[in-house]
Amino acid sequence: MIPGDGIGPEISASVKEIFRAADAPVEWEDVDVTPVKGPDGNYKLPAKIFESMGKTKVGLKGPLETPVGKGHRSLNLALRKEFNLYANVRPCKSIEGYQTAYPSVDLVTIRENTEGEYSGIEHELAKGLVQSVKKITEKASMRVAEYAFAYARDNNRHTVTAVHKANVMKMSDGLFLKCCRTVAERNKDIKFEEMYLDTVCLNMPKDPTQFDVLVMPNLYGDILSDLCAGLIGGLGVTPSGNIGEDGAIFESVHGTAPDIAGQDKANPTALLLSAVMMLRYMGLGDYGRRIETAALDVIREGKHLTGDLGGRAKCSEFTAEICRKVRELD
Amino acid sequence: MIPGDGIGPEISASVKEIFRAADAPVEWEDVDVTPVKGPDGNYKLPAKIFESMGKTKVGLKGPLETPVGKGHRSLNLALRKEFNLYANVRPCKSIEGYQTAYPSVDLVTIRENTEGEYSGIEHELAKGLVQSVKKITEKASMRVAEYAFAYARDNNRHTVTAVHKANVMKMSDGLFLKCCRTVAERNKDIKFEEMYLDTVCLNMPKDPTQFDVLVMPNLYGDILSDLCAGLIGGLGVTPSGNIGEDGAIFESVHGTAPDIAGQDKANPTALLLSAVMMLRYMGLGDYGRRIETAALDVIREGKHLTGDLGGRAKCSEFTAEICRKVRELD
Ligand SMILES: CC(C)[C@H](C(=O)O)[C@@H](O)C(=O)O
Ligand SMILES: CC(C)[C@H](C(=O)O)[C@@H](O)C(=O)O
Repeated sequence: MIPGDGIGPEISASVKEIFRAADAPVEWEDVDVTPVKGPDGNYKLPAKIFESMGKTKVGLKGPLETPVGKGHRSLNLALRKEFNLYANVRPCKSIEGYQTAYPSVDLVTIRENTEGEYSGIEHELAKGLVQSVKKITEKASMRVAEYAFAYARDNNRHTVTAVHKANVMKMSDGLFLKCCRTVAERNKDIKFEEMYLDTVCLNMPKDPTQFDVLVMPNLYGDILSDLCAGLIGGLGVTPSGNIGEDGAIFESVHGTAPDIAGQDKANPTALLLSAVMMLRYMGLGDYGRRIETAALDVIREGKHLTGDLGGRAKCSEFTAEICRKVRELD
Repeated sequence: MIPGDGIGPEISASVKEIFRAADAPVEWEDVDVTPVKGPDGNYKLPAKIFESMGKTKVGLKGPLETPVGKGHRSLNLALRKEFNLYANVRPCKSIEGYQTAYPSVDLVTIRENTEGEYSGIEHELAKGLVQSVKKITEKASMRVAEYAFAYARDNNRHTVTAVHKANVMKMSDGLFLKCCRTVAERNKDIKFEEMYLDTVCLNMPKDPTQFDVLVMPNLYGDILSDLCAGLIGGLGVTPSGNIGEDGAIFESVHGTAPDIAGQDKANPTALLLSAVMMLRYMGLGDYGRRIETAALDVIREGKHLTGDLGGRAKCSEFTAEICRKVRELD
């Protein structure tokens, strides 16, 4: 467990409490990932996270504040990179009783998580002329495409849409698209579609129900997952998982909300639903289902909700109510 | 006038008819931009478009089908590039009586139109490893930022938001953002804000009314303009202008709709509203206002609408009705 910064400790504590109420057989090891300065003067992740992940292969992570200043890259990105978490999975499903402008959204964005526009390769070629490199490899594209089709099959979904701008980035998005097509050929039981990123953005607010599983390069996933979250009420209720070949980290993708930190006002839903994804990943789906049902029940009933969910309850009250439901569902 | 392909000729004819009804002092020169094969075997834009644009400095363009096959790049992009049309301006305003899910949208995306992810620079470094280059220059970033602030002032708008991912592409988006900040310093009468692209996507469907003028690198504009268009009913009703130092081309950004081409079913609204932008650009705003009022009146009244607008009228009937209104408003 990487509790994280700001409201991170509170919402992590809430998740642990709910896990206890559900008797979920999970032992937590808390890890602080604040970067430490190495002998070469560069900051890096502390040894503890490598030890812990090496042992458990699975993590749950609250929001992190990246320290400001030179030599720090985003801690969120550093974790994805260090543990080679190649697929970022963000299910986006409307929550009954909350934000009903789009009551029927049920889709999943799957984002390549290791390269693309996030390569980190940038140069200043001349004064006032900068280039950033978008790196696309066949290996990473095949891997995430295969993950998307396997995910679709395992989760009873029917269509995978590859999102791209191969009309403009003919070689890079072209390669990504080619890989998706190759994998689609081998997975004929799942329907395959292709759509330009801009067309997806055009269609998404018009009718999000036309989408099922979407797979795409890194930046497009960053954008689309937020757009989809916006349709159903925001990052406070959307879970996320970063899946690797040798481990996975689940995380809430909202911010650290320093303005309300420590005041027992935070909403633990996104982290809790991420923890539910984690339980499924660990083969503990029964516990996951029970916790998810309890949380969604509490939200639907509309009492005991935190401020951002439209209520006046404290984080601890919301948590206690979910715990009560979880026990009821036993 | 570049009538374009598919429904292009019909909607261009409709615009001309409405201009005649409004007595707008515009003489049209029709130009076909189908690429011609040069002596070197490469396809390029025909000489006629350079002659015509050299003379008139202003164009109106219907949708273009880019020929499939090697050696053809997007014709839309070729025009923007050849005439150095550096700012792509897409106003997005809810239309009364049409698609009221988002009845209060009123914003403008301003997109850098010459570089960024559209540089066209791509390499295959090794088998299965491709790089695309995002090129950002101080010159182009300053130019589009200056345009955005000037546009805001000229159009009685109050806030310019720079949209970026400088947390990830620190150098390229960093340079773009720095230029926006520099220009903002010189334009203190206009409020300046900065927002991550993903955060804009998150907030846009939640509350688009929080945005006013948005300025951004090329690809982000491609995405956001479509997202915004999706909120108010799609590309059939959203105009667009490509502004250069020495000329401008206004265009509808929807497709060629080959399935309904030649059947008098097309909706000319996007091209007409683009033509209204063109009239303003030419200093003929009074004609523009009259045409715009007439078109919006006809849509609001809800009779004589084309199929995609929810009616059963032919393009010619919709056009005739707008002409009637235009004359009434005389
Ligand atoms: C914090 C930021 C670097 C990150 C990203 O751009 O991927 C975030 O937006 C996300 O989606 O997890
Ligand atoms: C046709 C395509 C190349 C173009 C773009 O990507 O810019 C279009 O989507 C647009 O927005 O004008």
